[in-house]
This record gives sequence, structure tokens and C-alpha cells, in this order.
Amino acid sequence: MWTHKHLLGLEDLSRDDLLTVLDLARSFKKDGKLLTDRRDTLKGKTVLLLFFEPSTRTAMSFSAAAKRLSADVVSFNKATSSTAKGETLLDTAKNIEAMGGIDVVVVRHSATGAPHLLARSIRASVVNAGDGAHEHPTQGLLDLFTMRERFGRVEGLKVAIVGDIAHSRVARSNIHGLRKLGAEVTVCGPATLLSDDMRSLGVAVSYDLDAILPTMDVVNMLRLQKERLAGPLLPSDRDYTMRFGLTRERADRMKKGAIVMHPGPANRGVEIAPEVADATLRSSEDASSLRSTSGPRSVILEQVANGVAVRQAVLSLVAS
Amino acid sequence: MWTHKHLLGLEDLSRDDLLTVLDLARSFKKDGKLLTDRRDTLKGKTVLLLFFEPSTRTAMSFSAAAKRLSADVVSFNKATSSTAKGETLLDTAKNIEAMGGIDVVVVRHSATGAPHLLARSIRASVVNAGDGAHEHPTQGLLDLFTMRERFGRVEGLKVAIVGDIAHSRVARSNIHGLRKLGAEVTVCGPATLLSDDMRSLGVAVSYDLDAILPTMDVVNMLRLQKERLAGPLLPSDRDYTMRFGLTRERADRMKKGAIVMHPGPANRGVEIAPEVADATLRSSEDASSLRSTSGPRSVILEQVANGVAVRQAVLSLVAS
Amino acid sequence: MWTHKHLLGLEDLSRDDLLTVLDLARSFKKDGKLLTDRRDTLKGKTVLLLFFEPSTRTAMSFSAAAKRLSADVVSFNKATSSTAKGETLLDTAKNIEAMGGIDVVVVRHSATGAPHLLARSIRASVVNAGDGAHEHPTQGLLDLFTMRERFGRVEGLKVAIVGDIAHSRVARSNIHGLRKLGAEVTVCGPATLLSDDMRSLGVAVSYDLDAILPTMDVVNMLRLQKERLAGPLLPSDRDYTMRFGLTRERADRMKKGAIVMHPGPANRGVEIAPEVADATLRSSEDASSLRSTSGPRSVILEQVANGVAVRQAVLSLVAS
Repeated sequence: MWTHKHLLGLEDLSRDDLLTVLDLARSFKKDGKLLTDRRDTLKGKTVLLLFFEPSTRTAMSFSAAAKRLSADVVSFNKATSSTAKGETLLDTAKNIEAMGGIDVVVVRHSATGAPHLLARSIRASVVNAGDGAHEHPTQGLLDLFTMRERFGRVEGLKVAIVGDIAHSRVARSNIHGLRKLGAEVTVCGPATLLSDDMRSLGVAVSYDLDAILPTMDVVNMLRLQKERLAGPLLPSDRDYTMRFGLTRERADRMKKGAIVMHPGPANRGVEIAPEVADATLRSSEDASSLRSTSGPRSVILEQVANGVAVRQAVLSLVAS
Repeated sequence: MWTHKHLLGLEDLSRDDLLTVLDLARSFKKDGKLLTDRRDTLKGKTVLLLFFEPSTRTAMSFSAAAKRLSADVVSFNKATSSTAKGETLLDTAKNIEAMGGIDVVVVRHSATGAPHLLARSIRASVVNAGDGAHEHPTQGLLDLFTMRERFGRVEGLKVAIVGDIAHSRVARSNIHGLRKLGAEVTVCGPATLLSDDMRSLGVAVSYDLDAILPTMDVVNMLRLQKERLAGPLLPSDRDYTMRFGLTRERADRMKKGAIVMHPGPANRGVEIAPEVADATLRSSEDASSLRSTSGPRSVILEQVANGVAVRQAVLSLVAS
Repeated sequence: MWTHKHLLGLEDLSRDDLLTVLDLARSFKKDGKLLTDRRDTLKGKTVLLLFFEPSTRTAMSFSAAAKRLSADVVSFNKATSSTAKGETLLDTAKNIEAMGGIDVVVVRHSATGAPHLLARSIRASVVNAGDGAHEHPTQGLLDLFTMRERFGRVEGLKVAIVGDIAHSRVARSNIHGLRKLGAEVTVCGPATLLSDDMRSLGVAVSYDLDAILPTMDVVNMLRLQKERLAGPLLPSDRDYTMRFGLTRERADRMKKGAIVMHPGPANRGVEIAPEVADATLRSSEDASSLRSTSGPRSVILEQVANGVAVRQAVLSLVAS
């Protein structure tokens, strides 16, 4: 039984809540393929995409999900101003809400907690599409969904999350979701990009990708933010790739049946080699055109497809 | 009886025209709340939003208004190029019109008279969404609507418009509308931001907000354009706030029942204090979440809601 | 019989293919006027506008065409990043396609061959909306359509294409289409903007506009890219105008019944005089407002209208 008006983070959801979303998301696929027909679930409702950080892909995914549920979609994009961020956010949201008819606000903001502030201040349901380095719950859900679809379960899976863990909302949402569903999580990256409090989240910490790789069922490669490279935290992208990049050689040493994930967009040649990233959509009519013989472990495009299914499930649940 | 193909400015409208719009706008609200259902009034018609100045809020308001009347909405946004402005405007408008099916063009442009030029050159109805420092008629109408809803009438109201009167199209449209409906208007601001010809519009002029404040029914605080602050016309925002800012202390000295308006977005802490601006939507289910005990005079969010109703009325009238 | 899944260039089409598009496009006009009613041809289908170069006009034209066929339209605009262009294009397209439900991708890209790469890599039909200096097939088609509508035929017409031929995808698509339909084509411009291999395309080459002008049925003036002016290829816009600009004096020396075309947006005063460009929509109710007594040869706005009809035809054909 779903009882949440908002989806702010996976930390707030129970194991049953997670399974409710994942089960419902399954109904938007058939034979491993995303269904694109329109349903009337949100007919007459309006979803506002309120993006204070640019993200065309996530916005398009939410938009596709909302439209396939027959919702009207309204977009508002704005670079976060340097001052009075919270006020701008609230002021903007209240103004748009005053125009009437907004049922769900999907918000992305560089400030941790921005969706929570909104949820306290406006009438509509709020879905967090990424807040600072805090949470990105629908990304976490689509990652869980993809693993579950591939392995039939999440429990007991050995999952490595590799890269800039400290600054990653994707990592945080994954960790919360994976732990609740019983996976064994290892975070791996340079010491400068790992924080010690990770252990308190119930995950193992490794600084040596080669050491952990052969035992993992899932390797989730995070996008390396370009602005961190050659900064105080990291010497160079070449050095990063040598230690933590998923090269073809490393991918070859992975367990049979193990999969490679990436939240996209990938820095090909930095955290992941192009031939590892290039993906195939399993069990879909897309397979013939997208299949790559060199990257059969990659489920990156499956993740993209599953993102729409998961967002359809989330929008259906919070708006009903 | 409405006979205008275009809405270019409130200066062109008679008292009866104004009342026709305001009466019709009332039909888009119920119990003080904006109705968000779709009507078929503009079904099969297309409204073009042709914005040469950025204004997400006004564009969203017109878009919501048009969609609730079942119109299709097409948007064209372009920063005004520095040269050949008029030509770019006309060339763009004629090109889009040549694609066929445009019934109403809502235009915002930095040049005074741009909507008038369009109205002479294209087939569609033209609605002025702000032209230079000239007029912003739907803002004027929504302000009139808000006062009328609050006080039951506009006639005889004592209305102060405070701030950069000389450069404000909001002030100009308000003055024309308020005078025609019989309000007593006082414009108030620094001498550098008031022009002498104001008196010819039938308004009183004051340089002393504290002197006029206690007798006013309505105080409409204009947005101070940041680029004027610390320029030749104004010494600093702190000085401006001391003399013309609507601080909490000043708001407390206002008449019982008097209201505070602002066309938005407000520079909180400059022309208006945050606790004065933070608003409540009266008589709506939004009230519980938006109410603020400190800003009960503010009708800012009511203005936003009324903007949609007024724009629905205007679009209905010009397109029929 | 149309057998093409994609429209990548007019070079690939046969004479019969061209006539199929042009005949079908005619069904979207009546009495010389664009029909704006909605048809169900693409109901339930989705057209993605994937523009890596800014082009509001072409995007709006495709969007209007798709919507009048009842397609859903999704837009993705992105400035081409300086590195890894091909990869960004493919990665973006595959990601969007993975979200499901994309039937036609209309792509504009600065790289020659980008639409061909896409056509090999994704499932959807691909329509080239301009690739580098290579082809812009729907512009070529709308130009053919406009000539055919004006003269009743293309065969035997004497057509001059004037300007920066070497860098123009519009010229290239026009040349392919005009040659296949039997027109006599002369390209004309400064030697620095003509390439010798033009003759291999079966066109005459001239460096003297005044010499060829009096015999031409059609003069198609290309837009001069501002970045070429005062560069190594051209001395100044004044010099260019003197030699190759379609001034009023030159237009007066054109043959009776000859027409002036321009793909827009025109640099008025550079390659074409304002009074020559200012156009009339023949045989339409727009005529009264748009007619100009000084530019009766110009069919520029007809081209814009015909662009929608031609794109409706192309989308209908590739998506069926």
C-alpha cells in the first residue's frame, strides 16, 4: 500500500514501498520492451517539470512518462541564480502553483533539500529529480529495476558503485535502495572521492577496483564530473582511467553474467571505455540495430528505457 | 459589446471595454479560486507566444490561459538583436504567419509600439504582453481585477503606485485603467524616476511614501530594475529601501483593509520586505499552505492567479 | 511508389520520387493557400526534432507539419560540442530512442553525413533537416514545389542560384532536384565561393550576375553567412552587394514573370534589397496585409508556406 504524497528520496521508503514501485513499473514493459501506448492514469492532471539544473535526458524521460499517462506537461527551466536560491525556488514554485492546476512538481535543484522545502510549501505532490549531492531517487529506482529484471532479484547481489561517491546523488540513492532490498554494496574510488561515513550506510569501501571486480554481479560506473578532474581531488583523467576506468581489459575480467551500468551521459574513454559502454537493448526489437559485440555486459540503454517505466510508476503512485 | 481585434493598450479601451474584460474574467474563477477545467472557446485556434524579451512567468500565464481555452500554443523566444529590431520582428512574425494557422499573436518586445506595428502588418489578432516602457495591458487588467475582487469596486479607491514610474509599462497601463474606472491615483518615487508629464495623465505625484501611505487603499509596489540601482538615477538599494521600500514598519501603518500589490518578481528586501510580500491566496484551498501570518495585506499570489483569468478573458474576446 | 525509409538527400531520389513528394504536397494546399486542418495520418506516432544547430524557423515548420498530421512532437536542441561530435549525436539519439516511441527523427547537424550515420544506427526513420554544407533536402523540395506552382512545371526553367555556392547545402539540394526535373541551372557568385566541381553536377557557372539575370526565370538568392564577410574569401558586404546583391535596379532588369527566391532569413541590404525581398502571398487571404507593391517578384513567404506542405508530404511518406 503506497501512502506517500511525495517521492523525495529512497531513504524514506520501506522495502515494501520499493517493491510496490518496481512491481508497478513492470506493467509498463512487455517482453523486455517498453510499452509506448497511452494510458489514462493521469488524464486531466498536470505535471510541472521545474528544473534549476540543466538535464535534457532526465527531463525528457519524465516528460515521456507523464505524457504516456495522459498528463499535461509544463516545463520551467532556470539556471540557479547565485543568490537567494531557496527564495527563488519557493517564489517560482508558488507563482506557478498560483496559476492553478499543477498536480505534480518534478524538481531538480543544486541545493540539497530543495524538494523537501517545496513539499512543505506547496499543495502539489513533489518528485525529486536530483537535489545537490543528496538523492536522485528515480535513478536509484531504475537501477534497482534493471538489476531485478536482469537477475530476477536484488537480494544477495554483489554491487560495486565506482567513482566520485562523495559527490554523487546517484550513489546515495542506490545505496539506500540496494541496502533495503538486501544487496551487498561496495563503493570504490579514490580516497579523495570517498567519505568515511559511507561505512555507516552499511556498505564496504574499496580503493582498488581490480581487487573487487571479479566478484561483482553489477558494476555501476558513475559519471566523473569534468570539473573535478585536474582539480585538488584528482590529478588527471588519464590517471583516473588507469586506476578506476572500466576498460575493456577490466570488463573481460568480470564474472560471467555480470553487468555494467552507468547513469549517463558517459565520459567515454574516462570512466568507461567506448566499447564497454556501447550497449544493446536485450529482448527488444531495438536489439538488432543497437547490439554491439564488444559490450554485451552493458545495460546502459536498458537503464534509459527502464527509467521511463519507473517514472511512470512513480507519477502514477504520487498523483493518485 | 467588444469590438477590438487587438489588445494593444488600456489607453485604447473605454470604461465599458474594461468592464467587459473584468466581468468575463470573473467567469474563470469560482469562490475566489481559479477554475482549471478546459473549455472549448478557442478549440482549433492557435496562439503564438512571440517573446523578444525573456519572461517565463508571463509566458506561462498566457500559455495556461490559452490551453484552458483548448487553443494550441506555439512559442517563439528570441533575444532582440541589437540592429534592425523592427525588421526582425516583422520578418519573424510574417514568416511564422506564412506557416499558417496562427490566430492570435501574444507579443513582448523591448521597443515601444512593436505590437502596434505587428497589428498593422499581420492577419492575426495581436495582444501586447509588454512593449518597452509603454504598456503591459494584461498586467493592468489583472491589477484592476484584483482590486475589484477585493473591494467590490475600483471607483473611488485611493491607489498608490510606487517606484520607477518613468520606466514602467505596468504603471502606465495601471494609470490608464484606474483613471477610466474612477480610482484616485498617486504615483510616488524618487524625482529621478518620475516624469512631469504624469500629471497630464490625471494622477497626483508624491516624493514621500510615508506621507501618503496611511490614506491609501492599495499600494502597488513596482519592481526596481537592478540596472538602475547605483546608476546615475539612484544612489544605492539601501537608500532606495529607506525612502521607498515597503518595510514591515511601513506596512503596519497602512489603513485597515488596505492591500499590497506587486507585479513580480519582487526584489525582496529592496522595494518590499520578504515578510510583507509573502502572500496568501484568499478563499482557496491553497490558503492553508500559502498563508503567512506576517503578510496578510499582500495579494501578490492572487494577482498571479487573476492573471490567468484575465488572459483567458482577453484571448476569448480578441479571438472570437 | 515511395520506397524510402529515410529522406537523407535529394541526390538519392529519382525523378519519380521527387514528383511523388511534390504531388502529395499539393494536397496540403487549396486555391494557393496552405490548409491548416488536422489530419490523422501520423496519429499515435512521435516525431523527434533533434537539432544540433539552432534553427527556429525550420524547427517550427517541421513542428507545424507534424502536428497537422496529428503526430506528437518532441524537441531536443543542443549546440554541437566541439569534441566527439559523432559520438554525442549517436549517444543522444540512442538514448532518446531507448525511451521508446520515436517514429521519425528530424535531424540538423553541422557535420556532413550525420543523418546518414543516424539512419544506420537507429530504428526510426530519419529526415535530414540540414547537414553541414551537404544537403537540406526539404528546402530543395519546397523550392521545387514553389517553382512548379508558379510556372506549372520545373522542366526547362532557367534557374540561377546566387551567392556562397561552395558552402551551401541549400544550393546542393536545389541542384540535385532541379537537374533531375530538367531545369537549366546556373550557379553564380564570387570565384572564392564557387568550386570547380560544380560543373560535374551539370550546372553552368557564372561570375557575373548582371550578364545572366535577364534570361533567368528564377533567381534564388542564398543567404550570405556573416562570418564569411570581410574574411579571406570576401572583401566586404558593400563590395558583395555591388556585384551580387539583388538590388531593385537589378530586379527591374529581370524577365517578365521571373521570380525571386530566398531560403531566409534574408540579410536585407546585403544579398537582397529590402524592397525586393518584401513579399506577397499570392492567392491567399494573407495577400492584403502582406502585399508590397515594390517586391512583386518575391515568393519568399510562399516558400515558407510551401515548406510546411512539403514537410507534411515527406513526414507522411517516410512514416507510413
